[in-house]
Amino acid sequence: MKKLAMGIDIGGTNTAFGLVDEEGTIFCESAISTERYKKFDDYEAYVKTLCESMKALISSVSFDFELIGIGIGAPNANYHKGTIETPANLWKFRDDEPNPDESRRMFYFVDDVKKYFPGVEVLITNDANAAAIGEGVFGNAKGMDDYVVITLGTGLGSGIVSNGEMIYGHDGFAGEYGHIMVDSRATGRECGCGRRGCLEAYASATGIKRTAFELMAKMNCDSELRDTPYSKFEAVMLSMAADKGDAIAKEAFRYTGEVLGKALADLVATTSPKAIILFGGLAKAGKHIFEPTKWYMEENMLATFKNKVDLLPSGIEGENAAILGSSALIWQKQQKK
Amino acid sequence: MKKLAMGIDIGGTNTAFGLVDEEGTIFCESAISTERYKKFDDYEAYVKTLCESMKALISSVSFDFELIGIGIGAPNANYHKGTIETPANLWKFRDDEPNPDESRRMFYFVDDVKKYFPGVEVLITNDANAAAIGEGVFGNAKGMDDYVVITLGTGLGSGIVSNGEMIYGHDGFAGEYGHIMVDSRATGRECGCGRRGCLEAYASATGIKRTAFELMAKMNCDSELRDTPYSKFEAVMLSMAADKGDAIAKEAFRYTGEVLGKALADLVATTSPKAIILFGGLAKAGKHIFEPTKWYMEENMLATFKNKVDLLPSGIEGENAAILGSSALIWQKQQKK
Repeated sequence: MKKLAMGIDIGGTNTAFGLVDEEGTIFCESAISTERYKKFDDYEAYVKTLCESMKALISSVSFDFELIGIGIGAPNANYHKGTIETPANLWKFRDDEPNPDESRRMFYFVDDVKKYFPGVEVLITNDANAAAIGEGVFGNAKGMDDYVVITLGTGLGSGIVSNGEMIYGHDGFAGEYGHIMVDSRATGRECGCGRRGCLEAYASATGIKRTAFELMAKMNCDSELRDTPYSKFEAVMLSMAADKGDAIAKEAFRYTGEVLGKALADLVATTSPKAIILFGGLAKAGKHIFEPTKWYMEENMLATFKNKVDLLPSGIEGENAAILGSSALIWQKQQKK
Repeated sequence: MKKLAMGIDIGGTNTAFGLVDEEGTIFCESAISTERYKKFDDYEAYVKTLCESMKALISSVSFDFELIGIGIGAPNANYHKGTIETPANLWKFRDDEPNPDESRRMFYFVDDVKKYFPGVEVLITNDANAAAIGEGVFGNAKGMDDYVVITLGTGLGSGIVSNGEMIYGHDGFAGEYGHIMVDSRATGRECGCGRRGCLEAYASATGIKRTAFELMAKMNCDSELRDTPYSKFEAVMLSMAADKGDAIAKEAFRYTGEVLGKALADLVATTSPKAIILFGGLAKAGKHIFEPTKWYMEENMLATFKNKVDLLPSGIEGENAAILGSSALIWQKQQKK
């Protein structure tokens, strides 16, 4: 019988899910709102709606198949424990709640989904790890035992694979490469984590936007970028401006590539991957981001590793990359059986 | 029959080797000079002398035993290929040799030893990885699947274990954490690798000595450290001075701990180990180095990881730690069978 795995991508706005076969074909997909259930008390209703919607999707398939498992990618997810822990944008306390105890926001997501799907394997990991497993099973890291996926979205996430295994670390939270410190001075950029100078404050869609605004202050040249306020500014505008030769946009990419390239040279010295895959919104800027990143990575590389590591685009990226990545959690385990 | 593994530690001055049982007891040991064979053309004679000396040691054992393998720790060793590649201080070209081709200094050490011990398993890895495996099999990382060993000697080496496996990386050279860049400015300290600002130029026995000399220039206080020239200065003098409250020595340890602690916080964000073990000469300074390192590591840690990671001393350190570590390469494989 045909085997299919369910992949679920939990985002702050929507939760998308779909049924995927071992070739990476998505047979059908659907989505529910995550935002509608953003309060702490909405969590149970969210799980119920999600599971019932998945059951409806499963019923809609016109042929017989075996559901071999459910893979989930979510922010702050812990593979070892099957939990989502104190996520920044999900199931939050009400603003007027007195002294909310953040430690209560520990959601046993895998167990809760299993209640609706008894006997089905359910696995969860964070979005960057899911992307990394997706690249390994379906994308540009197929057949590699040692590689890294860097997701360049609102923040910078990383999934590090060594000896053919995802590095989850002792507590299940490894791979927070966005929070290595690249500027430890008091003037380092504030990071969402509460510290300063983290890599993701520079190398991410948000990071390059911050750089562009610094450059508008620093440089005197004309630029169409000066017509958009910070609150409306999106990183994709920098790609479009760079295509047209805008000096601020070009310098913003160069600087971002410098910070990211240096950080990747350090990561290579640490884990020596065969390839590093850049994934996510900012990676779509193509040569604008790849060229300076590659140049600074090689420039700062220990001689042993020079010209050995490929810097690659995603091989699964598209609207459904996150569903593919989450389903790959299940397919990867299947391949190892 | 009793099983024993041979552990070999190849240093620039001597090569020590010994027979080790599964409890980590060294039954007998011996050594030959490495320095005597430091020329490129001496390599074959070195291997012959080493292997014949090992055979003599084996013959000297008064009871019957099975030699289950030979584990080797050496600088620039590659686990995957069984090689020692362009080592800085071993089997060098003569100074008057015209245009020596460094790529010829690729020594197939495992194969060469096997010629003398046909049928015996021979494994090689670099010294820091051997120390890490030694801690896992016999020392303070026993039973851990995710841990890091940092060796603080002349340089800074690292062995990173995740999912119970040493991270060798794609090319077998992973774990060069001494060469992450902690100061990318043009004023960063020159490193032996030819670049500037590498971690080991600050956090190592040599690094803290460099710091002490910077501080002698910067600070005005009296200090007995001022009586020793750079060429005669050893890091252990800083421990002794710090014990007596010397202000320069204390500041040198604080600064070294700051640089190392920050770098370890980044390593925790990357691989999330259960423990980090400080190994080697500088680690013997005890609280002088552990206290500031721990403080700055926690201070710079992403909240997720705070107060979760143990900073531990070596559990095998002593004169024979390197023999134990190398033999552990064999014992580790035995345990997995």
